[in-house]
Amino acid sequence: MLGKYTDNVRLKTPLIHNITNYVTVNDVANILLACGGSPIMADDQDEVEEITSICGGLCINIGTLNHNTIPSMFKAGKKANSLNHPALLDPVGAGASALRTQTALDLIKDVHFSVIRGNISEIKVLANGTGGAKGVDADVADTVTDKNIEQAVAFAKAFAEKTNSVIAISGAIDIVCDSKRAFVIKNGHPVMSRITGSGCMLSAMTTAYITANPDNILEAAAASFVAMGVCGELAQEKLAKNNAGNSTFRNYLIDAVFNLDGETLERRAKYEIY
Amino acid sequence: MLGKYTDNVRLKTPLIHNITNYVTVNDVANILLACGGSPIMADDQDEVEEITSICGGLCINIGTLNHNTIPSMFKAGKKANSLNHPALLDPVGAGASALRTQTALDLIKDVHFSVIRGNISEIKVLANGTGGAKGVDADVADTVTDKNIEQAVAFAKAFAEKTNSVIAISGAIDIVCDSKRAFVIKNGHPVMSRITGSGCMLSAMTTAYITANPDNILEAAAASFVAMGVCGELAQEKLAKNNAGNSTFRNYLIDAVFNLDGETLERRAKYEIY
Amino acid sequence: MLGKYTDNVRLKTPLIHNITNYVTVNDVANILLACGGSPIMADDQDEVEEITSICGGLCINIGTLNHNTIPSMFKAGKKANSLNHPALLDPVGAGASALRTQTALDLIKDVHFSVIRGNISEIKVLANGTGGAKGVDADVADTVTDKNIEQAVAFAKAFAEKTNSVIAISGAIDIVCDSKRAFVIKNGHPVMSRITGSGCMLSAMTTAYITANPDNILEAAAASFVAMGVCGELAQEKLAKNNAGNSTFRNYLIDAVFNLDGETLERRAKYEIY
Repeated sequence: MLGKYTDNVRLKTPLIHNITNYVTVNDVANILLACGGSPIMADDQDEVEEITSICGGLCINIGTLNHNTIPSMFKAGKKANSLNHPALLDPVGAGASALRTQTALDLIKDVHFSVIRGNISEIKVLANGTGGAKGVDADVADTVTDKNIEQAVAFAKAFAEKTNSVIAISGAIDIVCDSKRAFVIKNGHPVMSRITGSGCMLSAMTTAYITANPDNILEAAAASFVAMGVCGELAQEKLAKNNAGNSTFRNYLIDAVFNLDGETLERRAKYEIY
Repeated sequence: MLGKYTDNVRLKTPLIHNITNYVTVNDVANILLACGGSPIMADDQDEVEEITSICGGLCINIGTLNHNTIPSMFKAGKKANSLNHPALLDPVGAGASALRTQTALDLIKDVHFSVIRGNISEIKVLANGTGGAKGVDADVADTVTDKNIEQAVAFAKAFAEKTNSVIAISGAIDIVCDSKRAFVIKNGHPVMSRITGSGCMLSAMTTAYITANPDNILEAAAASFVAMGVCGELAQEKLAKNNAGNSTFRNYLIDAVFNLDGETLERRAKYEIY
Repeated sequence: MLGKYTDNVRLKTPLIHNITNYVTVNDVANILLACGGSPIMADDQDEVEEITSICGGLCINIGTLNHNTIPSMFKAGKKANSLNHPALLDPVGAGASALRTQTALDLIKDVHFSVIRGNISEIKVLANGTGGAKGVDADVADTVTDKNIEQAVAFAKAFAEKTNSVIAISGAIDIVCDSKRAFVIKNGHPVMSRITGSGCMLSAMTTAYITANPDNILEAAAASFVAMGVCGELAQEKLAKNNAGNSTFRNYLIDAVFNLDGETLERRAKYEIY
């Protein structure tokens, strides 16, 4: 069922405007090209509205936000809303500083995001309006497990209802949900957390997926999560054969996205609906 | 004939000042090192003139231009001119926003560029002083083909005459020309458009080539285009053997530049003079 | 003896705050993950003090310094000092522009750095308070050799005494010393200078090592240099087998750090105490 959303990205080549961090931007661009999309990065206030206008979707990532780029995020977000373009927010490090927490909260207030994608700690900070974080990785205490999955899904659905967004939480167990229905996804491999940018790349891919599948935002977002998880597994299988490390893993991961088709995604998908 | 321009880069190790975008800057630095040059990136107004002064050539790429870096581009460009250093402009996304179009046009007015390198859509925008673009990739309607090559060459030569620059247009068919003579180059492979930065890397390499061969700007620019095309072919041949994807292709491409010599370039070069 | 400092990084997973350049930032993040640390990049004045507070160590790299990030370096540095967090300075390109030289000198005056890491030319500029440089690479005239090693060590010890910092100079022969004792290290391979970022990655790794080993700053810094050198050798051995180039070398280098253990480091370490 999810395979067609993957294939649609290649059919439609969605052009995605990224206001993103400078740490992982190259990987973000390459994974967008790998999945069948096309990237453009632009963050100056004087051009972001125009750039968003020629694109199909917008991905805002606050990973290295600063006083020049923050106003651009609001401008681009509002423009995307006015054009009915899907927009995604990746609140990288929300909770790690007041600037990040407040910027993310203000963005959610002023801009409607089709999808908000983060780790569980970041999403909890946004839902609670406050909170701590240990850098840009999820706090262990927040981890979604088989034991607390019911509460985690209920939490995510409530936040989806409040924001009218698809809430997409990545981790060992992913949750992608709207207010009524949740995909609980178990694809992926722990080594994905040993490279920088797996979250940023996923956010960009999710934006491409929802832009290519505007009538099925929830399913498309879930498909992008399954796709990233399956490609993580494929990359890990290749890595295990040659005893390489995380830098090679990054290449294999993007390569796997480049070669992924809907049929493979269907065959390897591991998820349940809650 | 073009091989010696490649070898000269390794002999002279030109130091290249890059004011460039943060998307592909790492690849740009590595390909400059691969081809035998040496990169330095600096974009603060308070140092760009000094940095340009200790370098041999200047590469200005507007891929993620902003209000801090735009004035730096003008300062560095004028300084390079005053020192008689070759300067290259890569007008990334000209046509995609007024900021990009106007900045590129103003740069061409205030700074003499030895080479202006872009895709056909970007160059048309600069020649016409206006126009649209679909992101940072060339518009299909603009594509240079065997059928329209005569007109495309005439267009490029006219713009070269107007700007007194070598005009270097990359695509499936490349055109590198001054007002009188054009190299029409058919090296390369379509997969090169599936990675980010193939254009940015080419611009940096072209800057290294013209800096190492200051008395043969046209030939050196053409040699850099042939070099990039040949390396794209070599990378693709390697890729075909192991069924990898675009991330690995990027590595193979830079690796091929690292290992390229003039003799290989000569043997594989596919071009005609118009 | 040095192996345990490597193993401690994996045991303690130090979170490192990086204010760094946008050229090599992705490699810096991946090598921190590879060695067992965890990276966070943040450079806006309004959040750097908070970010530093949640981290264990701070790495300041002036590779693409600008007027927005320079004040952040001072703020973060002072905060790190007040919290007794180890801080490292990488004065990239000191000597190449007055802005770089003066910023690095001012940082050393206002902030105490546990380690100052650069190439010999950069360190000489800081010690002399002035001087030239040929870009971001060391000047050949400054090269540390077996013939001038005694003078070079004496110079480094004197600067260590003056700054009360560990002085860590990378090159074909590395010197890592405090005012009394110097590790002179001969691991590594010349191809490491053919990729961008080997210095930046080393600085970040050194920060992780000293943060995980706060009671042995000198030994931990030396261990990080040996680790990088050994991994350069391992990467080169792998490269020699498949005739690849510098882009693949970068991947092999980070991979080697990912797989390095203390026992391998001990076995391959080549250093003397002066």
